[in-house]
Amino acid sequence: MTDAGGTLPAIAFVGLGAMGAPMAQNLLRAGFAVTVHNRTRHREEPLVEAGASRASSPAEAARDAEICITIVSDVPDVEEVICGPEGVLNGLRAGRLVVDMSTIGPKAARAVQHSCAQSNVRFIDAPVSGGPSGAQDASLAIMAGGAEADFQEALSALRAMGKTVALMGPVGAGQAAKLVNQVIGAGTFCAVAEGLMLARKLGLDETQTMDVIAGGAAGSWMVERLAPKMIGHDFEGGFKIELQAKDLRLVIENADELGLPMPLTRMIRQFLAAAAAEGHAQHGTQSVISVWERLSAS
Amino acid sequence: MTDAGGTLPAIAFVGLGAMGAPMAQNLLRAGFAVTVHNRTRHREEPLVEAGASRASSPAEAARDAEICITIVSDVPDVEEVICGPEGVLNGLRAGRLVVDMSTIGPKAARAVQHSCAQSNVRFIDAPVSGGPSGAQDASLAIMAGGAEADFQEALSALRAMGKTVALMGPVGAGQAAKLVNQVIGAGTFCAVAEGLMLARKLGLDETQTMDVIAGGAAGSWMVERLAPKMIGHDFEGGFKIELQAKDLRLVIENADELGLPMPLTRMIRQFLAAAAAEGHAQHGTQSVISVWERLSAS
Repeated sequence: MTDAGGTLPAIAFVGLGAMGAPMAQNLLRAGFAVTVHNRTRHREEPLVEAGASRASSPAEAARDAEICITIVSDVPDVEEVICGPEGVLNGLRAGRLVVDMSTIGPKAARAVQHSCAQSNVRFIDAPVSGGPSGAQDASLAIMAGGAEADFQEALSALRAMGKTVALMGPVGAGQAAKLVNQVIGAGTFCAVAEGLMLARKLGLDETQTMDVIAGGAAGSWMVERLAPKMIGHDFEGGFKIELQAKDLRLVIENADELGLPMPLTRMIRQFLAAAAAEGHAQHGTQSVISVWERLSAS
Repeated sequence: MTDAGGTLPAIAFVGLGAMGAPMAQNLLRAGFAVTVHNRTRHREEPLVEAGASRASSPAEAARDAEICITIVSDVPDVEEVICGPEGVLNGLRAGRLVVDMSTIGPKAARAVQHSCAQSNVRFIDAPVSGGPSGAQDASLAIMAGGAEADFQEALSALRAMGKTVALMGPVGAGQAAKLVNQVIGAGTFCAVAEGLMLARKLGLDETQTMDVIAGGAAGSWMVERLAPKMIGHDFEGGFKIELQAKDLRLVIENADELGLPMPLTRMIRQFLAAAAAEGHAQHGTQSVISVWERLSAS
């Protein structure tokens, strides 16, 4: 049940989206036996070609697994694939481990843990940061919450998918850290967008300006990696506006329960909503520059 | 008049604040002959001990200089030390070069250039980023605006004070790039502050959370260098709230003339005003965390 002695745990992997598909590929590459399932079944095919087994439902995928990994879009999706009629809990044996890598916030993670506990199944949350490119080259940051022993059991699998793997605290703590990450990331890329539009209107060479800024106190991953896509209007790929908006909705829901005002995050949600309204919901977060372009054109 | 052939230009240096004093020290260290002046005269003393000459006014400092560098706080200060009754233009010979490294925005820089031109003095703007620590270890980013030949003439001096030295365009372009830098930097550190307060309220280890985030897509200089000071309430040192607020005032003044809305920057000015109102005007920008602490306590 652990990789001590070299035996890798059998993995069920549910959710083969832009993140899940490359993550499952990395598990196969690392030598894990993986059984995959995805609601849109044809997305299982490239994984099967790479050596995975496939299953007709989450329950079926989980039947012989030691660890069941789930990564889907939002809270109702997690509830369905884990707790639903054909969910993981209807297949996974008692005592086994669910690792949910979706971003659903700490409150929802604790609720799913509660459902798992009623089936005598252990649970850890382990959301990720780094986007599709980080999923592809196994350089994700993975923020986990749960019992130390459960984390250790999942560690060989998590290390096959990410570069930084950290246990942040009890169940929900991984989700909490992910929400903090999303607040900081979204604030940073919106600041880059507003600054970039100012550079354009002031007549500066945008690329040269971002290059100079990258090396100083205003430098960031977003200045280095996202600003070039904003400048080039390269809106395909990256982390979708729709999902970033969902993550900030979770931030507000969880912060409201703590009585914590999030003035910056509330404003940024408006920028994301405006970008989605202009047709960028399925584009990467770099497309938020369109909001400033519209503002300055009016 | 240039350093070709190894002869360094004689420098007048006006303004020995938290930035100017260590910058002038670096010029001395690099072998330049430097004549200093500061309104509060006793601040000249450590420079004189390090080998500088001193002068009783900006005009007096500039009399035998080939290049006159100014770095003071705001637009009226620049106007006074360059164009005032005892200003640089009443001492500097025709044909010589003024390098203003203050942050005053492109519009004010062009006005000062106009005054210089009336005295047959050349002008470039060359504001800096990197704060007092960058000034001390000569790792500043220096963003210049002006004629290529004037920039080349100042380059040996600029390289003695900064690591990244870039000509961004004509006079005002250095100021323009600096304003863009301030927009992005302030947005980034406010996002870090809002995220850090969320981490605290969610019960996370703040340092561990920032360490994990630093390595991912939400990572930045601010997460790495400023978040630890926010966590430790280490409010002394760093770039002052009062000066950051002044810089964003210049952003809004310049953006308004371009008809460019700056929604994020306008909100951030409110956070800076709130921090100043709570007694942090002279503290570093990391003290903006106090605004979120107050918000979450109410």
